[in-house]
Amino acid sequence: MVIARVVGEVVATIKDEKMIGRKLLIVRETSVTNELVGKPVVAIDTLDAGVGDVVLIAQGSSARQTALTKETPTDAVIMAIVDTLQVEGQVTFRKG
Amino acid sequence: MVIARVVGEVVATIKDEKMIGRKLLIVRETSVTNELVGKPVVAIDTLDAGVGDVVLIAQGSSARQTALTKETPTDAVIMAIVDTLQVEGQVTFRKG
Amino acid sequence: MVIARVVGEVVATIKDEKMIGRKLLIVRETSVTNELVGKPVVAIDTLDAGVGDVVLIAQGSSARQTALTKETPTDAVIMAIVDTLQVEGQVTFRKG
Amino acid sequence: MVIARVVGEVVATIKDEKMIGRKLLIVRETSVTNELVGKPVVAIDTLDAGVGDVVLIAQGSSARQTALTKETPTDAVIMAIVDTLQVEGQVTFRKG
Amino acid sequence: MVIARVVGEVVATIKDEKMIGRKLLIVRETSVTNELVGKPVVAIDTLDAGVGDVVLIAQGSSARQTALTKETPTDAVIMAIVDTLQVEGQVTFRKG
Repeated sequence: MVIARVVGEVVATIKDEKMIGRKLLIVRETSVTNELVGKPVVAIDTLDAGVGDVVLIAQGSSARQTALTKETPTDAVIMAIVDTLQVEGQVTFRKG
Repeated sequence: MVIARVVGEVVATIKDEKMIGRKLLIVRETSVTNELVGKPVVAIDTLDAGVGDVVLIAQGSSARQTALTKETPTDAVIMAIVDTLQVEGQVTFRKG
Repeated sequence: MVIARVVGEVVATIKDEKMIGRKLLIVRETSVTNELVGKPVVAIDTLDAGVGDVVLIAQGSSARQTALTKETPTDAVIMAIVDTLQVEGQVTFRKG
Repeated sequence: MVIARVVGEVVATIKDEKMIGRKLLIVRETSVTNELVGKPVVAIDTLDAGVGDVVLIAQGSSARQTALTKETPTDAVIMAIVDTLQVEGQVTFRKG
Repeated sequence: MVIARVVGEVVATIKDEKMIGRKLLIVRETSVTNELVGKPVVAIDTLDAGVGDVVLIAQGSSARQTALTKETPTDAVIMAIVDTLQVEGQVTFRKG
C-alpha cells in the first residue's frame, strides 16, 4: 500500500453504472513526514475520509476487495486512515 | 484511477475478436488543471467520450469490470467523464 | 494499452509447457508518430504480426484474455495491429 | 518479488474490516548489499518480521495469496525473511 | 515479459508455507545485447536456470500461471530460458 494524503475530489455524472454513489477522492503520495511527493491519483473512498487525511491506498485488483468496490472498474481504494507512522522507533506523523 | 484527457483515436482492423466494435481512444494523463503530463495510452471507451474530454481511466484487471470490456484483452478503460476537479476546496477544472 | 512497434523476436526452447508453440516478439513502445521511445518488452503474438508492424499490447492479467494466452504465464500480448493513429484530428501514423 | 528492509510501522484504527488484526509494516526497497534505495511502501506482515529485517515482498494480486491476506484489500505482503543474498557467487548480505 | 539475466540467489528459511521448496533467483533486466540495465528482482525459477542464463520473466498475476507457482504469493517467475534474441533481423544475443 502507498501512504497518501487526500487533497481533493472529483465530480463525474457520466460514469460506469457500478460507480454510481461512489465517492472519488484525489490523493497524492506522501513521505512518512506527510510531505506531498506523488502526483494526483483518484481513489474510491470507503471510510468517509476527507481532505487533509493521511490514508493508505491499495491499488490494482486489490482495490476491488472491499464491500463498496467489489466488481467495479476501480484500481485504487482508500482502505485505512492513518493514526501514526513510525520509522526506526520515532513517530514521524501523528493524526492532528 | 488516473485523470486523463482524450487526445485521439486508433483504427485497427486486425485485432483480437473480442475487441471487435470496441472504440479505442488515445488518452494522456493530465494535471488537476488539465495540462497534459503523461504519454499516450490507449483506453477502451465505454461512455461515448470524445477528443478534449477529461476522463478517469482504470487500469489493469479493473479495466475489465465494465459490461463492454468483460473478459477482453483490455488493460485501460474510460469509466468516468469528469465534470469538476477540486483541490483544497478550489475548483481547478470545470467541464466545457 | 500501449502503442508499440515490433522490432524482433525471441527463440527459447526451454520454457513453460504452456508456452510451447507461442511466438515471442520483441516490441518497443512508440510515440504516436512511430518513433521508438520505450525499452524492449516481449509479447505473445496472436495476430501474425511481423517486424515493423505498429501494434497495441495489453499487459498484466489482461494479456491472458485471448484464446492463445488463456491460463499461460504471459504478461504482455499483441491484441491489435494499428492501421492509423489520429491525434487532435490529424493522422499521425498510417500503416505503410 | 522485491528485496526490502522493514523500517517502521503504521497504526490505523479506521480501516476496512478485513484489515482488522493485520500488522502494517513500512518497508523500503534495498540493494543486494542492504542499502535503502526505494521509497516507503506499506506491506502486511505474515511472518512476525521486525524493524531491520531484510524481507521479500510480493505485490499486486499475489499479495493476497497468503492465509492472512486472502480476499483483503492488500497489494503488498511480506512473504519471506531473507537469510542470505548471493550475487555472482559472493554473499552480499547475511542476516544478523 | 522482460528479458533478464540471472545474477544470484536468495536463501530464506522463514517464508510463506507455499514457498517451501521454491528456488528464489535474483535477476536483473538486460538489453537485447545482454547488458544489465535493471535493478535486482527476485523471481521463482521453474526451469532449473542458473547464474548467467538470460531468461524471460512474467510478472504480476501471470507469475502464478505455472505448475510450481499456482496460488503462491509470487509476483515474478522465470518462464523461458533464451536461446537467441534477434532485432531487425540481426542476432543480438546467442546462448553461450
